[in-house]
Amino acid sequence: MATSLSDQAPMPAPRPSRRPRAQPSPWARPSQRQQQREAKRNAVLTTAAQLFNERGFHATSLDDIAAHLHVSKPTLYYYVKNKDEILLACVQKGLHMTLEGIEASRQAGGNALDQLRACMQVYAEIVVQPFGMCLIRVGDEEVPEPSRTELRRMKSEIDLAFRRLVTQGVEDGSIAPCDPKIMAFVIAGGLSWIGRWYQPGGQYPENEVVAQCIDALLGGVLKRPPAPKPVARKSGRTPS
Amino acid sequence: MATSLSDQAPMPAPRPSRRPRAQPSPWARPSQRQQQREAKRNAVLTTAAQLFNERGFHATSLDDIAAHLHVSKPTLYYYVKNKDEILLACVQKGLHMTLEGIEASRQAGGNALDQLRACMQVYAEIVVQPFGMCLIRVGDEEVPEPSRTELRRMKSEIDLAFRRLVTQGVEDGSIAPCDPKIMAFVIAGGLSWIGRWYQPGGQYPENEVVAQCIDALLGGVLKRPPAPKPVARKSGRTPS
Repeated sequence: MATSLSDQAPMPAPRPSRRPRAQPSPWARPSQRQQQREAKRNAVLTTAAQLFNERGFHATSLDDIAAHLHVSKPTLYYYVKNKDEILLACVQKGLHMTLEGIEASRQAGGNALDQLRACMQVYAEIVVQPFGMCLIRVGDEEVPEPSRTELRRMKSEIDLAFRRLVTQGVEDGSIAPCDPKIMAFVIAGGLSWIGRWYQPGGQYPENEVVAQCIDALLGGVLKRPPAPKPVARKSGRTPS
Repeated sequence: MATSLSDQAPMPAPRPSRRPRAQPSPWARPSQRQQQREAKRNAVLTTAAQLFNERGFHATSLDDIAAHLHVSKPTLYYYVKNKDEILLACVQKGLHMTLEGIEASRQAGGNALDQLRACMQVYAEIVVQPFGMCLIRVGDEEVPEPSRTELRRMKSEIDLAFRRLVTQGVEDGSIAPCDPKIMAFVIAGGLSWIGRWYQPGGQYPENEVVAQCIDALLGGVLKRPPAPKPVARKSGRTPS
């Protein structure tokens, strides 16, 4: 039974019961734009830090950084002022990451040695990353005043955190008797040096380097005497 | 009784019985001149190294170096070509001193640990001196090629010397089981860092810093368990 099309009741047009879905705007919202800008500035800083670490600060130009990011130099100026500002931002990022990590280790609790070990871990993990490596490889002298003084203040905060934990460890007997200032510098040196010799993507995975350097510093170069055997109790029980 | 002047016998002229003593020449002899030139070039390099260490390589000008030596900049050019050449010479001096010291420690003999300890001593003593400090504070990147490759080759010779001694010490049981490459870097780091933090003429005398850093690296951060007491022999003798 054929029916004419006109017999069929027309489909009711969907009524705009709700507000029509807005055409997506090709422009990002202000909050997104802020995020994108931040991400782009971060990419500039990370690339710059990597190049400074590989070639040295003075041998790296803004053109090099722009070329690595496939943008023009004028585009960079939308995110950073100049090379000095980039270096300052990189080093500050490295320092902030370290100070935050040290504070987190402190809050995680444990005795002085636990906290020291956690701080060493944080520090070593940061010096193998671009910003931390930049902190180690580029000297403070490269940063113009007054930022240089501020950076040195932050660095000495890190030194003090290590020194405080060593002092506590010596007091509670977990750390060898020593001058805490010098011991803290030896720890910082052994770990910072990773930022000089470590080649990302090379022979050793990062976590192995970090773990081995911490062990070497904690245990020392000399072979340790075997720990004294606990005296067997005369309990009358035989081992099962 | 007046006598005429002509009556007096003239004083006999002193006869040149021996060769007349030569008037000392105000000019130095060639061999002395060479020595003086060398001493002056050395003074230029030492002053430069001190300024590079304090202010950074880029922040130090030839004018600064000349002013510190109370000479004009053109005078400097009689001893050095330019700032790059000065830096290269400073770093090379630091490296040669280190390599010679390491070779002397090796020739002094002893087991691997004795030799390692002697090498650590040499290395630490050099990084607190201007040329050694320069080696630590100024990055290789600042030295133009082909000298940079040559410097890196010399640095890796130092790394290898430490690594070889650690390997031998692990084999003879005096050094804790470890990856010798990483242990050697930890040692070099702990000692090199002195060149970053040490202030000549500051709180600690040099020899104390050197000794304490070596002890910290050898003994480690952790308190060592007491060495096991030797088992008393039943010899029948009573202690006197």
